[in-house]
Amino acid sequence: MDASTNDLPDAVLFDVDGTLVDSNYQHVVAWTRAFQGVGVVVPAPHLHRAVGMGGDQLVAAVAGDDVEREHGDAVREAWKTEYLALLDRVPALPGAADLLRACHERGLAVVLASSSPGDLLERHCAIIGADLVDEVVDAVTTADDVEASKPAGDLFSVAAQKVGAQRAVAVGDSPWDARSAHAAGVGVVLVRSGGFCDELLRGEAPDAPLYDDAADLLARLEGSPLT
Amino acid sequence: MDASTNDLPDAVLFDVDGTLVDSNYQHVVAWTRAFQGVGVVVPAPHLHRAVGMGGDQLVAAVAGDDVEREHGDAVREAWKTEYLALLDRVPALPGAADLLRACHERGLAVVLASSSPGDLLERHCAIIGADLVDEVVDAVTTADDVEASKPAGDLFSVAAQKVGAQRAVAVGDSPWDARSAHAAGVGVVLVRSGGFCDELLRGEAPDAPLYDDAADLLARLEGSPLT
Repeated sequence: MDASTNDLPDAVLFDVDGTLVDSNYQHVVAWTRAFQGVGVVVPAPHLHRAVGMGGDQLVAAVAGDDVEREHGDAVREAWKTEYLALLDRVPALPGAADLLRACHERGLAVVLASSSPGDLLERHCAIIGADLVDEVVDAVTTADDVEASKPAGDLFSVAAQKVGAQRAVAVGDSPWDARSAHAAGVGVVLVRSGGFCDELLRGEAPDAPLYDDAADLLARLEGSPLT
Repeated sequence: MDASTNDLPDAVLFDVDGTLVDSNYQHVVAWTRAFQGVGVVVPAPHLHRAVGMGGDQLVAAVAGDDVEREHGDAVREAWKTEYLALLDRVPALPGAADLLRACHERGLAVVLASSSPGDLLERHCAIIGADLVDEVVDAVTTADDVEASKPAGDLFSVAAQKVGAQRAVAVGDSPWDARSAHAAGVGVVLVRSGGFCDELLRGEAPDAPLYDDAADLLARLEGSPLT
């Protein structure tokens, strides 16, 4: 193995919401409703900016520590109920399944690393294609596997450990993915398909390459940090 | 009247969605579902960027002329049905009612100029506060009043004409408001409460002042183009 071979990644850690499934806007609407249920109004763009954090961190981040203390669990429970009611119309993002397959076929370990609870990840895998996921995904980590969700580094750290990766690269759509990857000491590639502005993405990862979506990353896989 | 007095605006033309009511994300979900109904997948961030255009222009803008020709009316009808199902949880944006009242109390003619159909504007006025709107709003224009909705200039032109304004200023949340105001020859002030990035807003109106939301504009009304 020469030096350049050593630089090649051996695993790719995929965020799911906004990266593989087009769920961020439904999450915003679900959180809007969940906060309204406890009498708290949080404007939708503030929620959008927080989507991709785990629910364990989002409530305090957008509504403050008092709301977290008094209503955190109720809001998270309501969010999940509201999101499940919207989930039937969440599609996969363009290129999601093909990108997973292409990474697998290149010999990369493929891990899904989502801030969502485990049962939601299962539903999202069904949207991407359950058979394909069974075939090409080597491991998954969810909020259930870690103490602190994104933007903490735990999810991507555990994801890399699960497949024994020496040099993993994370793929995500949000500033929280970038921050989490940085904390976990793994590389990061960002996609715009979660609706985050370039300025927000670049604020957390000035050097990370940006792609429009999974299809764009797949089309330009050669020369990307994944190959 | 001296020269500086002549520069003062005599009317303010308010966009509604994303400016006075927090509806943009619900519109994205409603459009997502409407397109799915005819078998067309449009990723949510693409829809977000188009929200604020009238429905007469949005379908072709995000899905192309063929989809508009074959399915345009069906998609618009489905969008409205889906949006009405989400509307019960759309709140007013922070400061919306107070900003309308403050403009009225300063002697400005207050006009609501929405790209939505007239019956949706009525529902949105109820969310802002029907009594307040009756008291402080001098005129309304909707998609029903013009041939081409935003980003054409017609809506803001007709809005200014309805109150005989000599120097109107539009307040909106989207690049389409900026473009429409420019086409109508009126000034524009932009708010971030529709979830559009500064780079998108500045792309259409490099010199327009940006405010976080109606509450922020109200707090800094002195020195703004509205006073």
